[in-house]
Amino acid sequence: MGPIGLVNGEIIDLGDKIVEMEDRGYQFGDGVYEVTRVYNGRCFCLRQHMDRLYRSLRELSIPATYTFEELAEFHDRLIEKSGLTTAAVYLQITRGVAPRAHGFPDKVTPRLTMSIRPNRSTPELTEAGAKGVFVPDLRWLRCDIKSINLLGNMLAKQQAKAAGAFEGVQVRDGAVTEGSSSNFFIVRDGILWTHPVNNLILRGITRTVLIDELAPRLGLTVVEKTFDVPFAKKADEAFVCGTNSEIVPLVTMDADKIGEGRPGPVTLKLTEALLQKIEAECGGR
Amino acid sequence: MGPIGLVNGEIIDLGDKIVEMEDRGYQFGDGVYEVTRVYNGRCFCLRQHMDRLYRSLRELSIPATYTFEELAEFHDRLIEKSGLTTAAVYLQITRGVAPRAHGFPDKVTPRLTMSIRPNRSTPELTEAGAKGVFVPDLRWLRCDIKSINLLGNMLAKQQAKAAGAFEGVQVRDGAVTEGSSSNFFIVRDGILWTHPVNNLILRGITRTVLIDELAPRLGLTVVEKTFDVPFAKKADEAFVCGTNSEIVPLVTMDADKIGEGRPGPVTLKLTEALLQKIEAECGGR
Repeated sequence: MGPIGLVNGEIIDLGDKIVEMEDRGYQFGDGVYEVTRVYNGRCFCLRQHMDRLYRSLRELSIPATYTFEELAEFHDRLIEKSGLTTAAVYLQITRGVAPRAHGFPDKVTPRLTMSIRPNRSTPELTEAGAKGVFVPDLRWLRCDIKSINLLGNMLAKQQAKAAGAFEGVQVRDGAVTEGSSSNFFIVRDGILWTHPVNNLILRGITRTVLIDELAPRLGLTVVEKTFDVPFAKKADEAFVCGTNSEIVPLVTMDADKIGEGRPGPVTLKLTEALLQKIEAECGGR
Repeated sequence: MGPIGLVNGEIIDLGDKIVEMEDRGYQFGDGVYEVTRVYNGRCFCLRQHMDRLYRSLRELSIPATYTFEELAEFHDRLIEKSGLTTAAVYLQITRGVAPRAHGFPDKVTPRLTMSIRPNRSTPELTEAGAKGVFVPDLRWLRCDIKSINLLGNMLAKQQAKAAGAFEGVQVRDGAVTEGSSSNFFIVRDGILWTHPVNNLILRGITRTVLIDELAPRLGLTVVEKTFDVPFAKKADEAFVCGTNSEIVPLVTMDADKIGEGRPGPVTLKLTEALLQKIEAECGGR
């Protein structure tokens, strides 16, 4: 079949008009989201994504009106109805419709919208690496919430696109935070460095898998500390990771080569380990 | 009739579903807006609002596909069809529908949505004053764009609501910026102080009217400089101004009385001058 949507449990066409203009998602960006990858017809790390969704909802005081089992079933239904096996499922919950006023409405009926679209891994980027650029981090101070207030992320990605780069890596007050839709890591002397988890970055699911599972298994040390652009540019390797991008080596940042200017051994080892985990969890890719 | 909407030129019911889930306004908050007050069946400062709208669109590279004359006609049509003469018109333009990706889509068809709802002035607040609270400014670094990424503003207002206050006045790095949907002024020794125009505040239309027209006419000096919370609390008077709130005296901030704890003479003189301007421009209130 192909790309389709799901609204409050019903399958829809993505072209269907399903939202009133006064949905707070449309007038305030008052909502949260998740994107889950589908490999071999199965969701990867769905529980972790939904746990993060529930946290985002809590942080914005949006009632969680769906159980994990329901959300999992919606994912399965989208996969089944679409016939897509290598795909991404998008899920968004907004605070729903209310006459426009900044404060929370008294009565809240959250709206769930979901979609599935084909997605694919990018072995060509794993092999050749990609370009990154450092861009200013314009975002708000609650980047730990996966909200749909994404103008800052959007402008960072657009700035990267305009520079012919794969990703814009954001810098706030001198500290390298994260990519526009990914977390950023560097490797120096065999050690991985990445921004610590706080209000300035999103705790990426792939980031967590790397730090909690893959790096220890490979005997790699991860340092979660802030660092600046000159420190990053002196790295041996750099990469971004995320649900959509998996792991993408960044072989240049701005006009500067990182290390030898090609994907490095630590990045490739982690990529291999991630792909093995995907295969193990989803029974294939 | 009452509250109604208008989408791409057509009158609609506010309950109509008119937006696809992949409208970028719904998935990224990728859009801008304006709210214009209607007094005596006429728009107040419409030209200024639409000029600011065009600026917001430019800053986000969203094509402006409507002329001022068209937008003015849409405002008139909403007023006429609704039968509302004391009202507010909401206008939003998003980048429109595209398969979800952070960067700008190649083909953009902006979507215009508008609504009209009754609104009214609040003489009871002019007389008695209102409570304000200082809250952290969580917003992004392009607050000069009137975008629909409003989670920070929303949380500020909600924090004020929860404290029983009228408005949350935001503070970033020690500097008092602005209200959640208003600009903030203080009066010290007869002089008005407010945050300067830069990326950290929205250039309010009412703010501009006060600074460029009303204060000079009343012989009042305005200082556009940053100041901190202790400085603000030592003021003789404080108020917020905005399209919806007009001018609202803030007679307490947090638990502290401002000046005598009642609306002060400068605030009241400015309010009187604003109401006169409204009467002159709209032929009544």
